[in-house]
Amino acid sequence: MARPIITLTTDFGLSDHFVASMKGVILGLLPNADIVDISHQVGAYNISEAAFVISQAYADFPKKTVHVVVVDPGVGTSRRPILVSAAGQFFIAPDNGVLSMVYSREKHAVRAITNAKYFRQPLSETFHGRDIFAPCAARLAKGASPASFGKLFRDYVQLALDEPARTGARSWSGTVLKADRFGNLITNFRISEFPVVFTRPFRFAAGGHEITEMARTFADFPEGEVFVLVGSAGFLEISMNQGSAAEQLGVGTGAPVDLTIY
Amino acid sequence: MARPIITLTTDFGLSDHFVASMKGVILGLLPNADIVDISHQVGAYNISEAAFVISQAYADFPKKTVHVVVVDPGVGTSRRPILVSAAGQFFIAPDNGVLSMVYSREKHAVRAITNAKYFRQPLSETFHGRDIFAPCAARLAKGASPASFGKLFRDYVQLALDEPARTGARSWSGTVLKADRFGNLITNFRISEFPVVFTRPFRFAAGGHEITEMARTFADFPEGEVFVLVGSAGFLEISMNQGSAAEQLGVGTGAPVDLTIY
Amino acid sequence: MARPIITLTTDFGLSDHFVASMKGVILGLLPNADIVDISHQVGAYNISEAAFVISQAYADFPKKTVHVVVVDPGVGTSRRPILVSAAGQFFIAPDNGVLSMVYSREKHAVRAITNAKYFRQPLSETFHGRDIFAPCAARLAKGASPASFGKLFRDYVQLALDEPARTGARSWSGTVLKADRFGNLITNFRISEFPVVFTRPFRFAAGGHEITEMARTFADFPEGEVFVLVGSAGFLEISMNQGSAAEQLGVGTGAPVDLTIY
Repeated sequence: MARPIITLTTDFGLSDHFVASMKGVILGLLPNADIVDISHQVGAYNISEAAFVISQAYADFPKKTVHVVVVDPGVGTSRRPILVSAAGQFFIAPDNGVLSMVYSREKHAVRAITNAKYFRQPLSETFHGRDIFAPCAARLAKGASPASFGKLFRDYVQLALDEPARTGARSWSGTVLKADRFGNLITNFRISEFPVVFTRPFRFAAGGHEITEMARTFADFPEGEVFVLVGSAGFLEISMNQGSAAEQLGVGTGAPVDLTIY
Repeated sequence: MARPIITLTTDFGLSDHFVASMKGVILGLLPNADIVDISHQVGAYNISEAAFVISQAYADFPKKTVHVVVVDPGVGTSRRPILVSAAGQFFIAPDNGVLSMVYSREKHAVRAITNAKYFRQPLSETFHGRDIFAPCAARLAKGASPASFGKLFRDYVQLALDEPARTGARSWSGTVLKADRFGNLITNFRISEFPVVFTRPFRFAAGGHEITEMARTFADFPEGEVFVLVGSAGFLEISMNQGSAAEQLGVGTGAPVDLTIY
Repeated sequence: MARPIITLTTDFGLSDHFVASMKGVILGLLPNADIVDISHQVGAYNISEAAFVISQAYADFPKKTVHVVVVDPGVGTSRRPILVSAAGQFFIAPDNGVLSMVYSREKHAVRAITNAKYFRQPLSETFHGRDIFAPCAARLAKGASPASFGKLFRDYVQLALDEPARTGARSWSGTVLKADRFGNLITNFRISEFPVVFTRPFRFAAGGHEITEMARTFADFPEGEVFVLVGSAGFLEISMNQGSAAEQLGVGTGAPVDLTIY
């Protein structure tokens, strides 16, 4: 009764036909698929942004959902397509680290997709979203067994995206995982690793500015002031009440953020 | 046979995972939901723009459609979530005036949503789109009775968005409800209130420019000239033939527009 | 069992209610329709860009798909709405050349849509996407015969979008059909017409720059260099490896591109 759900996360944007071509291929193979866009506005070739976006969305979907993530600067090279089982769901993506933040949260099994019978023919050099990832997702959602796609392997690419680097006794260097629509700067500092910000003075440095205030909710500070907040993702976010911290600090996705604890 | 329709209108944009999280929650509760995006490009925190967008779209949907509108600068404060019945359809939104232009067109009944059994748990402070509005929409579309959500009340927020203020014997001060994709400036002057523009000389002032010509269709004037037209919404629109009045006048959503009748 | 597929390609953008209104009308007439967005980001009134986008997408959809293309600068004038049968699929659009690149690839039959019973009433002057194209698509997808929409005719508008003009013994003048998300400049030079670029020295001139190198894949040249490639569409594309040729050359959709063979 429930239609199989396939989600799409890409850097294809919404102006070109690329996303629609993937959907056409999926619907040709699995007419009752329910295809949900997560985002197609990931920065071009930005693997870490895609890794963050899919990590924020998958847990809100039902079991057995198939998530397709195509941010693939290595298309046409030998990088492997992979099928990952984790959290009762499936992920299909190039093996370039784009699923790293799923790996760091969930037990997971990674297969190299090698069964070319599942690919669209002729296979293009430049559009594996349509020719490999979409048809594999449709066939998996239709009931093909994960094992039929290829073998489990262990040396898949895993990036330490959500682990700031220690730079001193009380200092760390991290990054902005994403500047969201409202200008919140979601850093890769997890509150679970840095609960100290609630009990000790601290300083975040980003874009030449310093942020030293901790808020519990947006309304704790007046409009115009920049503060740190625990976001719904469990990361420390640099935010403003009804304003854009990203604009205020002149900082965006991928920018460095340094933390010092006093 | 027909799938229940749920529409979404937000200021979440299309880059982040927010919209997808709402969809995942809906599909988890109501797998055969047909989810339709109205717009996620409403300006951040722009209640009047959202009020206009939903007012233009709902009448084109079938009876029983559930419209979710989440432009919610007060998330985490005590503003109430509401369920509105109007025009044989349903609307779920924060009680901040975002449904004002539905209220001004349709008989309506407004309930405060208080039944926490319908909320996602744990309830976050910052993402009621996912935790309150999406699951309530799914449960309503699935057949829960409106009365089960909470009680009718009368002191809901209603904004006079589509009523220009009188500023003199023959002058009014209004606003641009929205600058649309084509640069048409949709004002909040209703032709039903101002039919006089067809019979008397008038002057609209916007962005330091004056517009004094009335057109019946786009093709009435040559390219490059700015004129006033009755738009499909029943409002007076400042437009150009195959050009952008918004660019020409340097004016956008929310800008003031003054009318004088001679 | 399979739901009827209707795709939408427009210049309506994603900020306004226009696309949603079309979807509401379709779902009101055909509740089990599966509506797929191809692109709503076609440049305003840009017929040739829309012609390219739909030409790239349709072949990836199943037979019987109904493609609706609404880029319609002549809305409200006497330009005809048409229903085209081609490649086992259907196309509904204004007769302004927006289907030219389908015509140049596929056998096709073109009907003038004249059966006003299929239109939404009252019919607006400004929004035929909602009032003509959407309801006609729904009725066709629901099973109405093409012949019931109106008669076949021959003098429909066909534009020579994918044929560069000869300007000398060894020179041609063409255009950029589209600058895609990644900054690839897709020209209207088909490799099938110009295989000579693989065997003879050539010079593409675009935006005051010259491109003289031919690549087989993106990885053939180092980052930062601009080259020509055969794209998945069969057109010559001006590209960079992991960079934007559009930005590098300062050139976008619709720009002139000249080719000289030596």
